Amino acid sequence: MSRFWNERLRQLTPYVPGEQPQMANLIKLNTNEHPFGPGEAVTRAIRDAADDGLRLYPDPDATALRQAIADWFDLAPSQVFPANGSDEVLAFIFQGLFQPGEPVLFPDISYSFYPVYCGLYGLESRTVALDEHLRIPVESVRPPNGGVIFPNPNAPTGRFLELEAVARILAANPDRVVVVDEAYVDFGGESAARLIPDHPNLLVTQTLSKSRSLAGLRVGYALGQKHLIEGLERIKNSFNSYTLDRLAQAGATAAFRDESGFRAGQKAVIEQRERLISGLEALGFEVVPSRANFVFCRHPSVGGAALAARLRERHIIVRHFDKPRIEQYLRVTIGTAEQMDALLLALDDILNDRETQA
Amino acid sequence: MSRFWNERLRQLTPYVPGEQPQMANLIKLNTNEHPFGPGEAVTRAIRDAADDGLRLYPDPDATALRQAIADWFDLAPSQVFPANGSDEVLAFIFQGLFQPGEPVLFPDISYSFYPVYCGLYGLESRTVALDEHLRIPVESVRPPNGGVIFPNPNAPTGRFLELEAVARILAANPDRVVVVDEAYVDFGGESAARLIPDHPNLLVTQTLSKSRSLAGLRVGYALGQKHLIEGLERIKNSFNSYTLDRLAQAGATAAFRDESGFRAGQKAVIEQRERLISGLEALGFEVVPSRANFVFCRHPSVGGAALAARLRERHIIVRHFDKPRIEQYLRVTIGTAEQMDALLLALDDILNDRETQA
Repeated sequence: MSRFWNERLRQLTPYVPGEQPQMANLIKLNTNEHPFGPGEAVTRAIRDAADDGLRLYPDPDATALRQAIADWFDLAPSQVFPANGSDEVLAFIFQGLFQPGEPVLFPDISYSFYPVYCGLYGLESRTVALDEHLRIPVESVRPPNGGVIFPNPNAPTGRFLELEAVARILAANPDRVVVVDEAYVDFGGESAARLIPDHPNLLVTQTLSKSRSLAGLRVGYALGQKHLIEGLERIKNSFNSYTLDRLAQAGATAAFRDESGFRAGQKAVIEQRERLISGLEALGFEVVPSRANFVFCRHPSVGGAALAARLRERHIIVRHFDKPRIEQYLRVTIGTAEQMDALLLALDDILNDRETQA
Repeated sequence: MSRFWNERLRQLTPYVPGEQPQMANLIKLNTNEHPFGPGEAVTRAIRDAADDGLRLYPDPDATALRQAIADWFDLAPSQVFPANGSDEVLAFIFQGLFQPGEPVLFPDISYSFYPVYCGLYGLESRTVALDEHLRIPVESVRPPNGGVIFPNPNAPTGRFLELEAVARILAANPDRVVVVDEAYVDFGGESAARLIPDHPNLLVTQTLSKSRSLAGLRVGYALGQKHLIEGLERIKNSFNSYTLDRLAQAGATAAFRDESGFRAGQKAVIEQRERLISGLEALGFEVVPSRANFVFCRHPSVGGAALAARLRERHIIVRHFDKPRIEQYLRVTIGTAEQMDALLLALDDILNDRETQA
């Protein structure tokens, strides 16, 4: 704390991301990164952009990238807002499109950055409790509120809310922006982007960090009707004219043009997820139905914190949240077949060891 | 305007950056980019980082880059805050380190993003009028204020304020953060970074966009005592955990390790600036003394808007600000020797043409 910090800064509680350990020989299953790198088309586009052109500012409107994303979703470029990771997109939404004075609504078990944004922009919040199966109780997502946001699939649960239910939430909150945060939608969910024409209050956010293997490039975007996208542009142009560098624009554009690479990566992750779920269930785990690139699971006899610690001793890093209702759980990112095998073997070992000791 | 925009968003007046025209065969002297590209060491570092590692999040603390910057300035890494361009750094400062309730002070002729940040974060502002020679009147930079910020060299004037005068401003405002925005300092100014040990209220901001030929990479940073840097980290970690992508971190780190490339670029720009000033003065221009990579000049007989328009017809783009007190001026970025020759020739032509017509 410093006497120069203003009141807003003093009261912040920053977000704590999953750790990025610099150790070698680690099986890193804690931050939902893709097990495979981006395709050669993407890295080549970046290498091609690493030239004397770097002396020049990037296109502040990211025109080519916007067009590529618009083409992918069959939207107009004016319905696409790209930025420096979907976290930046979310920040701008909280800042400009949620209404102060009434609480922003989100699930009690959800992305833990949402309350941080509320703190950063002076917004109140109210949580909606997931039911005992960790499902969003759609009927409770009602006015009054200053806006609604939820991940779909939800994080860290992996549960997907069907679009019919999303449409009901949109209809029940016609005077507030409803944000469907689809960071994980490409692993078996269905995007709400197709609801955009009928819902002026809908914003969909996505990221290239997960299904497009580009967490290291920092690109995310919002999709919505033009009047909402224009609002985000005004915020961005009052914050930083050039949020996306030349390399990120080049790489992200190439990623959207590489459909076959995207499909192959998507398929590989889904296959490993289904295999992991079977393996975990065989070990006695209860696994929440997942349409994400992670699974959320708990074991009836060993707690989440203990399991995470025992896995860490074996150089396997998973995510444990020391929070009410979910402290028993582990969130495990889907990795390669070899990583999933190693994880299952380690868990088997840990669970048997416990039984031997008992 | 949309009914979903909140009050803050409705009232914003976004910053308008210099245009980034996509035309070929343009002499682009409007956004103060470096005439030469970054060195081979920089582009190679970026190409090397364009690999499968992009699937992983970047280091949220940019440890290697922070160390390289700290080494350059003989500071500790805890005294360095890197971010996605110095505009992002400035935004965080306005958000967390300026005190609401009292006006932020900056020169009336200055970087026009400052009042935009005030609007974005609900801060009042008060301008200090430059004197008739466009110098900052040091004695007027006094409390009460919510913080002080000025570019040094100033933009768009190019005038440098000696460090002795900067120290007087710091001493006169001991309870407020004073930001010295040094985007252009490497072209003949002297950094206030050496005042940091004696001044807990000093933040210095710099960018890699100008003197390090990396406008396209989006990297800037703040330097200051640890307690201020910690404040900026808290803001950043409440906004976006990963503001700097892997490629930007790699390229920027390499740029700080490439001292000879940096010195060569610096020398080339200063040489062309001095040559341009002589040429402009020979054409009758009045040129403000510049220690930046641009000059600010006016002609006694032709207005700035008219000159800018006539240059544009000849595919030379310079910056004209349609603002009180400076509407007569042009801001011209220092380019290559060939570009400076072409500019001087075009101006000679335009001025003679006018005389012929008269």
